[in-house]
Amino acid sequence: MTEPLFKKLTLVGLGLIGSSIARAARKYGAAERIVALDASKQVLSRVRELEIADEASGDVRSALEGADLVILCVPVGAIGAVAREIAPHLRHGAVLSDVGSVKASVIAQVAPHVPEGVHFVPAHPLAGTEFSGPDAGFATLFQNRWCILTPPAGESEAVEELAEFWKRLGARVETMSAEHHDLALAITSHLPHLIAYNIVGTADHLERVTQSEVIKFSASGFRDFTRIAASDPTMWRDVFLNNKDAVLEMLDRFNADLASLRTLIERSDGQGLFDLFTRTRAIRRGIIEQGQDTAAPDFGRGATGKL
Amino acid sequence: MTEPLFKKLTLVGLGLIGSSIARAARKYGAAERIVALDASKQVLSRVRELEIADEASGDVRSALEGADLVILCVPVGAIGAVAREIAPHLRHGAVLSDVGSVKASVIAQVAPHVPEGVHFVPAHPLAGTEFSGPDAGFATLFQNRWCILTPPAGESEAVEELAEFWKRLGARVETMSAEHHDLALAITSHLPHLIAYNIVGTADHLERVTQSEVIKFSASGFRDFTRIAASDPTMWRDVFLNNKDAVLEMLDRFNADLASLRTLIERSDGQGLFDLFTRTRAIRRGIIEQGQDTAAPDFGRGATGKL
Repeated sequence: MTEPLFKKLTLVGLGLIGSSIARAARKYGAAERIVALDASKQVLSRVRELEIADEASGDVRSALEGADLVILCVPVGAIGAVAREIAPHLRHGAVLSDVGSVKASVIAQVAPHVPEGVHFVPAHPLAGTEFSGPDAGFATLFQNRWCILTPPAGESEAVEELAEFWKRLGARVETMSAEHHDLALAITSHLPHLIAYNIVGTADHLERVTQSEVIKFSASGFRDFTRIAASDPTMWRDVFLNNKDAVLEMLDRFNADLASLRTLIERSDGQGLFDLFTRTRAIRRGIIEQGQDTAAPDFGRGATGKL
Repeated sequence: MTEPLFKKLTLVGLGLIGSSIARAARKYGAAERIVALDASKQVLSRVRELEIADEASGDVRSALEGADLVILCVPVGAIGAVAREIAPHLRHGAVLSDVGSVKASVIAQVAPHVPEGVHFVPAHPLAGTEFSGPDAGFATLFQNRWCILTPPAGESEAVEELAEFWKRLGARVETMSAEHHDLALAITSHLPHLIAYNIVGTADHLERVTQSEVIKFSASGFRDFTRIAASDPTMWRDVFLNNKDAVLEMLDRFNADLASLRTLIERSDGQGLFDLFTRTRAIRRGIIEQGQDTAAPDFGRGATGKL
């Protein structure tokens, strides 16, 4: 048995990600003791039924007492208030982290509350499904996924420890600035979600094509978008509110490109269309070559056995 | 053994769809004899190596002689010229069909060449992967997929026969007007592909995020788009050139909705975002309830065992 990396891990918020960390930390022996802290009695009772933590509690003080790793797994929009509430109960020397999809905003919200002697290392595991809540989690969610750390200067020891923790859960770890993270994720994650939500919204209110037809014929491309657009509304509302600048920058580039593409169609410019459609194959090849496309899709289809 | 529905099936064009029909027609005994007609010697020699047809020929006359079902499986942009070339060799009483992704344009290109006594029933099987060519096909491609027929008035017998053929291959058959088909597919298939091509194109020429980062972090939503945007460039060029009006109509609606969504983000309208993201979940539920989302994704991931 490998040595646990932390003595007491407290997870704050037991949704899809929090409950997956609980399951993974136990399965891979990353923490000696796992404590679930959640404001919802319903979630706590479900966590107890699922037996995915050693303790499930709504009491901030006892849940955090002696914890050497605390991970905030709450929506980005709530993280400032949660940080303020838990801050006084953090142990000196503890590592504090999170799993938020945006990082500059999380740092701005959390950092002011972090007590002297607590090591705050923001993190973002690039993993998820379109399902939510403690039942949706699973231990292998982070296998071969990237986890990006955006630490402040001077926290090298805590960064090392947290990186080890995520590797133990199966993730690959990368470090970068919060600002660069937010820009890179704006194009690889936030804009794709925005576009998916938008096209599903458009299909929702057509007059000449019925919703039942859209559903019936969705296999021809549309269906992939509906899966993305079924992601948690609270989480994604918070992402767009908290990474506004980078998202709008990417959206404006997307719109400019789309206007050019529209012109190609309008002018029946077959060569222009063909050239673009050929170029876009290159990125796909890169993804396949780098093994980023796996037999088990990370985006939830079947991963939780729910479909 | 079930009785074959046709004596001689000639497939014109042995790409992904044509070669899948060949394999499926044999596997499910839909035709007594299967002939492959293709202009490319390379394709013909591959068809012979794969042994997916009883005969592979570049000779139009002999390939079509006595065929009671002829299916054009060539890109929509080439279908008019192909129809003109084969028309003189069609048997009186034969059923002529196609598999094009747009229907009004196919009818406009093909119908003028169809000889008296030949029954033209346009069809579109809603199935495919992002792979192309005779090697990419497989016999189960049409299982539980829709095949839409857009017949002219007065062809009820031929329609019945062709519907039986597609059912034998595992498809579900629906009949509608060519115009309605083109509109319904514009939103469920053509616009999703356009958007996917566009966002992958946008990601391709960023300065501040590298292509290798885009590839690395693609699992967070972007990857699904890259698969769609890896579809055959020729086929999709032709779709957009030949369904211009419906695609532009849907694109303009999409753009209007996206402008509203942009405003919600710009104004930090959390409630507006939450409401939209909640609405879009309903269509997804419809897809799951109607069994349109299956364990084996139709969009190619793993279906051909290539990934």
